[in-house]
Amino acid sequence: MPKPNVRDQLITASLATLHRKGFNATSVQDITDAAGVPKGSFYNHFASKEALGVEVVRLYSEGAAQLDASVDDPALPPLERVRRSFAAKVDANVKAEFACGCLLGNFSTELSAQSEPIRQEVSASYAGWAAWLQALFTQARQEGALAADEDTAELAQAAIDAWQGAVLRSKAEHSRAPLDRFMKTLNTRFLR
Amino acid sequence: MPKPNVRDQLITASLATLHRKGFNATSVQDITDAAGVPKGSFYNHFASKEALGVEVVRLYSEGAAQLDASVDDPALPPLERVRRSFAAKVDANVKAEFACGCLLGNFSTELSAQSEPIRQEVSASYAGWAAWLQALFTQARQEGALAADEDTAELAQAAIDAWQGAVLRSKAEHSRAPLDRFMKTLNTRFLR
Repeated sequence: MPKPNVRDQLITASLATLHRKGFNATSVQDITDAAGVPKGSFYNHFASKEALGVEVVRLYSEGAAQLDASVDDPALPPLERVRRSFAAKVDANVKAEFACGCLLGNFSTELSAQSEPIRQEVSASYAGWAAWLQALFTQARQEGALAADEDTAELAQAAIDAWQGAVLRSKAEHSRAPLDRFMKTLNTRFLR
Repeated sequence: MPKPNVRDQLITASLATLHRKGFNATSVQDITDAAGVPKGSFYNHFASKEALGVEVVRLYSEGAAQLDASVDDPALPPLERVRRSFAAKVDANVKAEFACGCLLGNFSTELSAQSEPIRQEVSASYAGWAAWLQALFTQARQEGALAADEDTAELAQAAIDAWQGAVLRSKAEHSRAPLDRFMKTLNTRFLR
């Protein structure tokens, strides 16, 4: 029986490599090297690199949602929670020197036509993120912080789209300017 | 001396494959197969797959700018030219069944940390696109179709960011909804 902790170790250790190098440029050897386990042990735990990729998307999404604990504070105004959630993502991208981008965005462009299981997991992550944003936007609308006729489901999706584009550009330009531009767009064009 | 037409043939034939499969998932063999030339001839024309990638970005950008000839018509209102340019990109993505996305966006996420020559060519393509949009936005501002205090350089970049995010989501969701959402966002949040 494979030890469950080696499986978790492979998922955790491969996240940083897959985030930085992408899926197709990362070999199983890279992953087992990162995890400090023998290459041969990989297939005791995963049927394929793709199967690991699905788990990595899940782990990444959980971590991305927890970058700033204060976004879960119900005492804060809902739009402030939204702003803080994106500001925490800006900080994470600055810290990574714009070399990684968002794993969801990276896998969206690289793997959507290549791996249906990974595409579905990425899509599920977007859906969870959109639901979280929509709930906050709906609360803000109820409190009068957004217009009464605002379509909060569409607003949540549009904010995620704009964020993904900003992170992609930030990676391409090696610059924080697109991220700062996003925060300004969020405040002046979306949350009004 | 290598024949120049084989070089062009390699660039043209590899564009569709690199657009659909991505850079790292496409082998030199895939490229020579697509071009119908012997594998061994590749390195007579390119020092590396990366060198070909730079040329493919250039060819793609030229083609993307010419999807709808009417966008060059100076008799049309500038914002109409902008709308048509994005509408033509929506049509191209629908036709591709959302399997390809934008080559610039794909290479932004996949290759920015891997290939500095390709990143620079992608960045140059964005710069050219932004300059084109900015000129039209500035004309629209002069004609009173945009607010007098609109920062047209920022607006051009923000529109590209939002478009890239929408295409990325469209690829991830296999859906035109993000593209339609972008057109609505463009009209109601950006061009006002």
